[in-house]
Amino acid sequence: MENKTDVAIIAGSVSDLALVSETVKVLDEFKLSYSINIASAHRTPEHLKQCIDGAERSGVKVFIAVAGMSAALPGVIASRTILPVIGVPVECKHLAGFDALLSIAQMPKGVPVATVAVGKAGAINAAILAAQIIAVADDDLKDKLKSHKIKLAELVVKEDIKLQKDGLDKYTSG
Amino acid sequence: MENKTDVAIIAGSVSDLALVSETVKVLDEFKLSYSINIASAHRTPEHLKQCIDGAERSGVKVFIAVAGMSAALPGVIASRTILPVIGVPVECKHLAGFDALLSIAQMPKGVPVATVAVGKAGAINAAILAAQIIAVADDDLKDKLKSHKIKLAELVVKEDIKLQKDGLDKYTSG
Amino acid sequence: MENKTDVAIIAGSVSDLALVSETVKVLDEFKLSYSINIASAHRTPEHLKQCIDGAERSGVKVFIAVAGMSAALPGVIASRTILPVIGVPVECKHLAGFDALLSIAQMPKGVPVATVAVGKAGAINAAILAAQIIAVADDDLKDKLKSHKIKLAELVVKEDIKLQKDGLDKYTSG
Amino acid sequence: MENKTDVAIIAGSVSDLALVSETVKVLDEFKLSYSINIASAHRTPEHLKQCIDGAERSGVKVFIAVAGMSAALPGVIASRTILPVIGVPVECKHLAGFDALLSIAQMPKGVPVATVAVGKAGAINAAILAAQIIAVADDDLKDKLKSHKIKLAELVVKEDIKLQKDGLDKYTSG
Amino acid sequence: MENKTDVAIIAGSVSDLALVSETVKVLDEFKLSYSINIASAHRTPEHLKQCIDGAERSGVKVFIAVAGMSAALPGVIASRTILPVIGVPVECKHLAGFDALLSIAQMPKGVPVATVAVGKAGAINAAILAAQIIAVADDDLKDKLKSHKIKLAELVVKEDIKLQKDGLDKYTSG
Amino acid sequence: MENKTDVAIIAGSVSDLALVSETVKVLDEFKLSYSINIASAHRTPEHLKQCIDGAERSGVKVFIAVAGMSAALPGVIASRTILPVIGVPVECKHLAGFDALLSIAQMPKGVPVATVAVGKAGAINAAILAAQIIAVADDDLKDKLKSHKIKLAELVVKEDIKLQKDGLDKYTSG
Amino acid sequence: MENKTDVAIIAGSVSDLALVSETVKVLDEFKLSYSINIASAHRTPEHLKQCIDGAERSGVKVFIAVAGMSAALPGVIASRTILPVIGVPVECKHLAGFDALLSIAQMPKGVPVATVAVGKAGAINAAILAAQIIAVADDDLKDKLKSHKIKLAELVVKEDIKLQKDGLDKYTSG
Amino acid sequence: MENKTDVAIIAGSVSDLALVSETVKVLDEFKLSYSINIASAHRTPEHLKQCIDGAERSGVKVFIAVAGMSAALPGVIASRTILPVIGVPVECKHLAGFDALLSIAQMPKGVPVATVAVGKAGAINAAILAAQIIAVADDDLKDKLKSHKIKLAELVVKEDIKLQKDGLDKYTSG
Repeated sequence: MENKTDVAIIAGSVSDLALVSETVKVLDEFKLSYSINIASAHRTPEHLKQCIDGAERSGVKVFIAVAGMSAALPGVIASRTILPVIGVPVECKHLAGFDALLSIAQMPKGVPVATVAVGKAGAINAAILAAQIIAVADDDLKDKLKSHKIKLAELVVKEDIKLQKDGLDKYTSG
Repeated sequence: MENKTDVAIIAGSVSDLALVSETVKVLDEFKLSYSINIASAHRTPEHLKQCIDGAERSGVKVFIAVAGMSAALPGVIASRTILPVIGVPVECKHLAGFDALLSIAQMPKGVPVATVAVGKAGAINAAILAAQIIAVADDDLKDKLKSHKIKLAELVVKEDIKLQKDGLDKYTSG
Repeated sequence: MENKTDVAIIAGSVSDLALVSETVKVLDEFKLSYSINIASAHRTPEHLKQCIDGAERSGVKVFIAVAGMSAALPGVIASRTILPVIGVPVECKHLAGFDALLSIAQMPKGVPVATVAVGKAGAINAAILAAQIIAVADDDLKDKLKSHKIKLAELVVKEDIKLQKDGLDKYTSG
Repeated sequence: MENKTDVAIIAGSVSDLALVSETVKVLDEFKLSYSINIASAHRTPEHLKQCIDGAERSGVKVFIAVAGMSAALPGVIASRTILPVIGVPVECKHLAGFDALLSIAQMPKGVPVATVAVGKAGAINAAILAAQIIAVADDDLKDKLKSHKIKLAELVVKEDIKLQKDGLDKYTSG
Repeated sequence: MENKTDVAIIAGSVSDLALVSETVKVLDEFKLSYSINIASAHRTPEHLKQCIDGAERSGVKVFIAVAGMSAALPGVIASRTILPVIGVPVECKHLAGFDALLSIAQMPKGVPVATVAVGKAGAINAAILAAQIIAVADDDLKDKLKSHKIKLAELVVKEDIKLQKDGLDKYTSG
Repeated sequence: MENKTDVAIIAGSVSDLALVSETVKVLDEFKLSYSINIASAHRTPEHLKQCIDGAERSGVKVFIAVAGMSAALPGVIASRTILPVIGVPVECKHLAGFDALLSIAQMPKGVPVATVAVGKAGAINAAILAAQIIAVADDDLKDKLKSHKIKLAELVVKEDIKLQKDGLDKYTSG
Repeated sequence: MENKTDVAIIAGSVSDLALVSETVKVLDEFKLSYSINIASAHRTPEHLKQCIDGAERSGVKVFIAVAGMSAALPGVIASRTILPVIGVPVECKHLAGFDALLSIAQMPKGVPVATVAVGKAGAINAAILAAQIIAVADDDLKDKLKSHKIKLAELVVKEDIKLQKDGLDKYTSG
Repeated sequence: MENKTDVAIIAGSVSDLALVSETVKVLDEFKLSYSINIASAHRTPEHLKQCIDGAERSGVKVFIAVAGMSAALPGVIASRTILPVIGVPVECKHLAGFDALLSIAQMPKGVPVATVAVGKAGAINAAILAAQIIAVADDDLKDKLKSHKIKLAELVVKEDIKLQKDGLDKYTSG
C-alpha cells in the first residue's frame, strides 16, 4: 500500500490553484503524496462529496481546503469526515480577507477546522501542518520536519550573517 | 393543495429558535404556512439534505436559514436548491457578529443568498422578504404587504403624533 | 403583455455600470427583460422616485440596486415598494467595502433588502437571485435555473478533470 | 418672527429618543428652539418628506438626524435640503456601531452629512455643532458658545483641582 | 470688508494638498473665498495655533481640516475655536482609512467636528457643507446651493438619458 | 507505556482555565490523557520552555494553547516543536476578540498554528481536532470520533424531532 | 532635588481615573513619584499646555496619557515635548475600542507615542514601560524591574504548581 | 566604553529591512549607534535569544523590533529583557495591517511593548522614540531632539510659506 495518498487538497475554484502550488512545493519537500481537486462547497456539493469520499477511500490522512469569500469549503469537508481538515483563507479583492478568515476560523462546536493564515503564508503552513499531523505516527517524517525546521532557522541565521557582512545598503538599494 | 408549505425555515441550532420565533410571528401575520427544522450544515449535513429535499418536495417557495459564527447553513442550502434562500446572521458573543454577516453575505458567483441584517431585525425582515418573493405571483399577498407597509408607517406616524402631544419627557423618563 | 419588464436595475452612479453589465449578462442568459437606470438616492431623490414608480407601473417583479459608500439606494427603493429589492454593495477605494456592505445589509425591521456579496460576485448573484424570485411562479424559468446550476457545476467538474489531466503546472505557469 | 424654529431634530425611531433628549438639553442651554419628529427614511419616506418640508417652511436652519443600523435618515434628509444636516450614529446591539457610523459618514460627493460620534457624545455634539452653525450669523450665540466652551474647560480644571486636593482614592473608591 | 475670507482650509501635510484642490474647486464654484495653510497638530502646534488665530482674526466662518492617520488636526482646531470645523479623513496606505475616520469622527462631548467621508468624496463634500453653513445667513449662497443641487441632479438624469439612448455597451467598453 | 500523555494543554493565564475545562471534558470523552500547565509566552518564557520540553519528553502528540490579547503562546510553542499546535483565541473584553484571533491565525510561513474559533466553541473544537490528529494512527480513536460525530448529529436530529412534536412556543417561552 | 517628579500622568477625563489608579499602583511598587492631572486635549488645550509645561519644569522624565474615543491627548502632549509619551487607549462603549487604539497608535512621522494595550492591561503596562524608560539611567530601578519581572514569573509558576496540586476543578467551580 | 551600542534593532525577516533603513536614517541623524539583526520569534527562537542576550551584554539601552502578521517578535523580546522594547507593525498584504498592529499593541499586563504606527511612519518614529528614551539621561541628545523637533516644524512652516507664495496649482499639477 505504498501508493496511498497522504493529503487530499481541495481548491474552491481554479483561481485558488496558484496558492495550491505553494502548498504542493512543501508537500513535495516532505515526500508526501497528495491529490488535488477543484470542488466547490457551493457550486458542486455532489462533486465535493465524491472528492471527499474518494479521498477517504484512498486512505488520505489529512484534508487541505483552499477557499475565499464565504469560504464554506473547509467546514463542509469537516462536516463529512473525522479526518483533520486544514483551511487556507484566500483574500478575494474586497473586505481585506476578513470574510474568508472569519468563515473558516469561526466553526461551531463539534466540527473543527484547523485554520492557517490568509494567503501564501497559510498555503505553505497548511502543508507543514499536514506533515506535522501525519508525523504523529511517522518518525521518519518527524525527522524531516526537524531538519526542515533547522534549515528554516539556518536560512534566517544566514541572512543575518550576510546582513552583518554586507550591511543594510545592499538590501534596500534594490 | 391548500396545505402546501410556503416557507421552509431552518435554524442552525436550538439557540437560534428565539430569533426564528420573530420570523414566525410575521409569517403568521401574512397567513403564510411554514415548516421549521433544526439542521446544521456542519453537524448534520445528511439531515440538512433531507430537510432541504423534504421542503422542496412539499413545494415550499422560499428558504429562510438562521445561523451564527461561520454561518454556512444558508449557503449550503443554496448549493442544493434553485429556490431563493434568505440568510439571517446571528451574533454569537464574539467578533460583534462580523463572522456570521460576512459568512452569509460573501457568497461566490453562481450561488446567491439573500442576506438580511444581523439579529432580530434580520429575523423579522426575512419573513417580509419571503412574503415579498411569494407575492411576485400572489396579488392577495401583495395587498397584504401593502397594508403591512402602511400600518408600519402609520405606527411611526402615530408615535410621532404622540411625541408632539406628550413631549419628550415621557419617553426618556422610563 | 409579453413585453413587460421583469427586472428594474438601478445604479447609483455611472461608475457602477461596469458591475451592472455583469448582472445584465446573466439576466440575458435567463431571457429576462430588464430596464437600467442611473438614479441616486442622495443626488436625485425625485428622479429615483420616478424610476421606482415607472418600474412598478411597467410591472417589474424585482429591483436590483447597485451602490457604493453609504449605499442608501437599495434601502430607499425598498422604502417605496413592496417588491423584493436586491442590493449589490460596491467597494469604493476606501474602508475595504465595509461601508457599502453594512449600509445595505443592516436594514431596520420592516424594510428588507436582499443583500448579496460586494462587487462582481454580488452583481452576478443579484441576477440569479432575481431569476430565482421570478421563478417562484414560472416553471420554465425554474428549469432554466436548474440547467444553469448544473452547467455551473459541470464547469467546475470539467476544470477538475482538466486539472487531473494537465496537472497543476499549467495553471500556475501563467 | 421670534417663534421660528432653529433646529429640526428627526429621530429614526422611538428608541432613539433617549439620545435626542441629550441633544435637547444642550439646545436648551443655548436657548435654541427646535422641533422633534419621529420619521424613518425606510418606513415612512412620505412622512419624512413632510417633516423635512415642514421644517424648511418653518425656517429651520439646521437638521439633526439620529439613526442606527443602515442609518439612511441623515443622508435622505440631505438629499432633500440644502440646509446643513448633522448625523448622529446610534449603536444598535450588533457590529459595535460600525454600521451606523459608516452609513452616515460615507456620503457620496455632492450630498454632505456632518457626522458626529456614535451615541451620547455625538448626540451632545450635534447640538453644539448646530449652535456653531447658527452662530455664523448670530454674535449673541457666538458669545454663548464661548461661555459654554469656557465653562466646559473650567469644569475640567475644577475636577483637576479637586483631584489635586482629594487625591486619587476618592475617585476610584466608588 | 468685502475681502474677508470665508473658509480656512488647513492641511496636515503637503501630501494632503491634492485632496485640498478638490475642496477648492467647489469653493470656487460657490465664489467663496478661502485661505489654505499647511499646519500639523502634531508637528507644528504653535504654527497651527497661529493659523487658527489668524483665520479667526480674518473673520473666517468655517474651518476645513484635512488629515490622515491619527488625524488630530480637526479636533485640535475645534479645541481652539467655536467656529464649525469640518474634518476630512485621508486614507494613508494602511488600515484602509479606519484610523483617520475614527480619529476624526469620535470626538468627545463638548467639541464637535463635522466629519465627512474618507478621501475625495469627503474633500468635495467639505466644501459644500461649508457653503451650506455659511448660507445659513446668506440667501444668495442658498440660491447657489439650490442651483448646484439641481445641476448635480440634472447631471445624473442626463447620464440616465444618455444610458437609455446609447445602451450599456458604451459605458463598459471603455 | 500506557500512561504516556496524549495532549499538552497550556493556558496563558489562570483566567483561561474556564475555557480549558471545556477542552478537558471532550478529551475525557475520548479517553485521551493530558497535562495542563499555566505558562505565559510573555511572562514566563523559561517556564514555558520547560513545559514544552517536559511535554515533548513525556511523548505528547499535540499541543493545545489557550490565550487572549496578543496571544503569542501558540506561536511560541510552535516555534519550539514540530508537533502540531492548536491555538484557541480568548476574547479579553476589548476589540471583540479580533486581537487574539489575528495574533494566533496570522502565523508566518514555516511555523503553522492550527487556529480554532474564539472562545468556548474553539476550546471544544481544539479537543476534537487533537483527537482527529492523534487518530491518524489510532483506529480505535477514529471509531470513537465517528461515534462522537454521529451522536452529535443525533442530538441535533433529536432536537429537531422534539421541535416538531412540541412546537416553537416551548423553546422561546423560557 | 529628591522630590522631583518622575512621571506625569494626564487623564483625558474623570472617567479615566479608575484606569489611572492601576497605573499608580505599579508606579508605587517601583517607588516612582508622579503627578496626576485631568486635562483634555479637546476641552482644555490651555490647561493641558500648562500641565505639560509644569511637568517639564518639575523635571518629569516620562508622560503617561490616558484617553478614549478620538484620543488626541497623547499625541498633543507629544507635539509639545521631547520626553517619551506613553498612550493608554480607553474603550468607551462603542466601536470596541478601535477608535482610541487607532487614534493613539497611528501617529505621523516625527511625533511618536508609545502605545500600549487598550484598558487595564495597558494602564498597568504604561507604568512598567515608564519604569523601563527611567531605568535606562538608573541601575537601582533596573534591579527593581528585574525583581518585578521575576516575581511576575514566579506568580505564574506558583499558579501552575497550585493547578498541578489542586487540579482544574477548583478553578472552574467558582 | 564609547563604542557601546545604543539601540538593538531586530527585524523579523529580510523583507522588513526596507523599513529598518528608515529607522536607521533617523538614528544616524541623532548619532546613535545600533546593531541590526534578522531574527524571527517563530523561526529562530534560539537565534533571537542570542541576539537579545548579545545586545544586553553589549549594553544597548533600547530594542526596536520590526515585524508583520502575527508579530510576536517585540513581545518575545520584551519577555526576555527589562529594557524598553519598541514594536513597529508591518503591513503584509492581507487584513490591512490590523494583524500586526493588534499583535504588537495588545500585550498582557506585565510585559509592555511601546507600539508605534504601522509601516514607514512607525519605522521613523521608533527611532525618535528610542532617542527620546535614551535622552532621559543624556542632555546632549535632549538638545538634538529639540533641534530635530524644531527643524521638523520649520519644514512644515516652510512648506506652508511656499504654498502661500506658489499657490496650490504647483502641488497638484505633479
